Amino acid sequence: MTAVGMAQPGGPEVLRPEDTAVPRPGAGQVLVKVAAAGVNRPDVIQRLGRYPPPPGASPIPGLEIAGEVVALGEGAPAEMLGRKVCALVTGGGYAEYCVAVASHCLPVPDGLSLAEAAALPETLFTVWHNVFERGFARDGETLLVHGGTSGIGTMAIKLAKLFDLRVIVTCGSDGKCAAARELGADHAINYRTQDFVEEVNKLTGGNGAELALDMVAGDYTQRNLDCLGVNGRLVTIAVLGGAQATINMAGLMVKRQTITGSTLRARSDAFKAALAEEIERTVWPFVAAGRLRPAMDKAFPLREAAAAHARMEAGEHVGKIVLTMEDR
Amino acid sequence: MTAVGMAQPGGPEVLRPEDTAVPRPGAGQVLVKVAAAGVNRPDVIQRLGRYPPPPGASPIPGLEIAGEVVALGEGAPAEMLGRKVCALVTGGGYAEYCVAVASHCLPVPDGLSLAEAAALPETLFTVWHNVFERGFARDGETLLVHGGTSGIGTMAIKLAKLFDLRVIVTCGSDGKCAAARELGADHAINYRTQDFVEEVNKLTGGNGAELALDMVAGDYTQRNLDCLGVNGRLVTIAVLGGAQATINMAGLMVKRQTITGSTLRARSDAFKAALAEEIERTVWPFVAAGRLRPAMDKAFPLREAAAAHARMEAGEHVGKIVLTMEDR
Repeated sequence: MTAVGMAQPGGPEVLRPEDTAVPRPGAGQVLVKVAAAGVNRPDVIQRLGRYPPPPGASPIPGLEIAGEVVALGEGAPAEMLGRKVCALVTGGGYAEYCVAVASHCLPVPDGLSLAEAAALPETLFTVWHNVFERGFARDGETLLVHGGTSGIGTMAIKLAKLFDLRVIVTCGSDGKCAAARELGADHAINYRTQDFVEEVNKLTGGNGAELALDMVAGDYTQRNLDCLGVNGRLVTIAVLGGAQATINMAGLMVKRQTITGSTLRARSDAFKAALAEEIERTVWPFVAAGRLRPAMDKAFPLREAAAAHARMEAGEHVGKIVLTMEDR
Repeated sequence: MTAVGMAQPGGPEVLRPEDTAVPRPGAGQVLVKVAAAGVNRPDVIQRLGRYPPPPGASPIPGLEIAGEVVALGEGAPAEMLGRKVCALVTGGGYAEYCVAVASHCLPVPDGLSLAEAAALPETLFTVWHNVFERGFARDGETLLVHGGTSGIGTMAIKLAKLFDLRVIVTCGSDGKCAAARELGADHAINYRTQDFVEEVNKLTGGNGAELALDMVAGDYTQRNLDCLGVNGRLVTIAVLGGAQATINMAGLMVKRQTITGSTLRARSDAFKAALAEEIERTVWPFVAAGRLRPAMDKAFPLREAAAAHARMEAGEHVGKIVLTMEDR
């Protein structure tokens, strides 16, 4: 089969199509003939050599796929054969075939294209877990999200609006702010021209937001706390602005705030299965009803994975970038 | 009545007995003829001028008292008159009479002296809320507590052992370590001669503790995170080592840790009443049964409040310092 790999870390150009063996599904796994694979920021960081695949994961990038189940590993449910699914995978998505844990797959409902389906798992699992499970989001609360037009940002907007939160996002241009508002954000702040701390406090009548979903860390950490009110929760899911953060613990105490965070890829299969089941129960009905669709940026053929990465790194995208297999 | 006040911020010597009017209980309050009042670290910080009383609180120091209810404000339960109670108060404890919110009082059971009763509320309310409610402590977990022989530290040891946690404390001398172990700590680390991060990791087989209760902040913040394992919770209740803390957000994410904290004094009356009710239900039976007693350091007459503060600041105490009224 054709997959996209890399001989060494580097720029987008290190991503090259290569011939490699079709993987074999192990116990509890299925083999998916991939129709489309989502491109995510962690893929870029992995390509740069700064995010090695966890033990046992494929060295091929790609954390989410959609396609048809064409073979079953031992103990995988027989009824899955021939089904169209999307799945969260620990790697290997940039390929014509990919192995997925059966319980990490979700069925692709009528009306959802496979390109759209491939664009859902990574951001949906991440946002659901961090905003609702870890951040205890409740309807009526205000959620602050950075990178409002990123894959995570667009999913956070859509999911939060489905569950009746108020959403404030930050973006790097007026155009992106407009795009975020069009996707449902209640407010979008251009962080290049406005102080987001001041704006969030204005927009919340000085009370602050209840919850912030952050992928920047660094000096955003304290600034996020400054955007949050009493009992506010900060959930950090990436450190694009640097891992080191200096915070004021007295302020955190007085406002009884909470800082937490998580990573998804290294979690246990059992955790991911539980999360998939929870999402199938709580979110998938909205997908099936056509009320939740990923914000789609652009699809690239698998062989042009380098161009897809270049687009993500240029930061011009709004929503999800996907790779599609050439024969489909 | 006699109370201890201060004309200006400063060292222990600014604490002086003064004649002042007996306060009048307002709606829902009771007047307590004080038999003993606990001395707490926040009193010292207030004396230094760095912890002003919240709006509406007495300028007289003292956050906990025990004594007899001698008058009732409007709507306070009639049956409280003549009862011996201990109470959490927002100030005014260093006095012969003090007003308390009726629902912030707990009955003094037989066998508990009024000096002991006065030594309970502040640390008990603080530890209960932060370790069990905010920190979600569960039996079998390991709790790390700094200042193992402080009022908070000794209460944390006793409470955690009653609820079947394993307790590791840090102290500043071998003598204090021995005292902490005698009070029930499973392990005590002399932080002056040992690296507590290394020791906690050794003592937990490399897994780290589940929970840390910290009153240091500053550079202890990251060191506490380094003592905690996956899903570990850090609860900060004071910043004796400085408010600014630099932490590694990537490490926090990978270990899915949580940082939170709180202050007690500024909370609403309703919150404190709910906390008192919870404590009466969950902890008070242990007090009534003689299974929970505060670690008592030394009692000083009210007029010697300055000496009591000097003792606390010298850091030689083990457990609680209290002031007792001279005619009792």
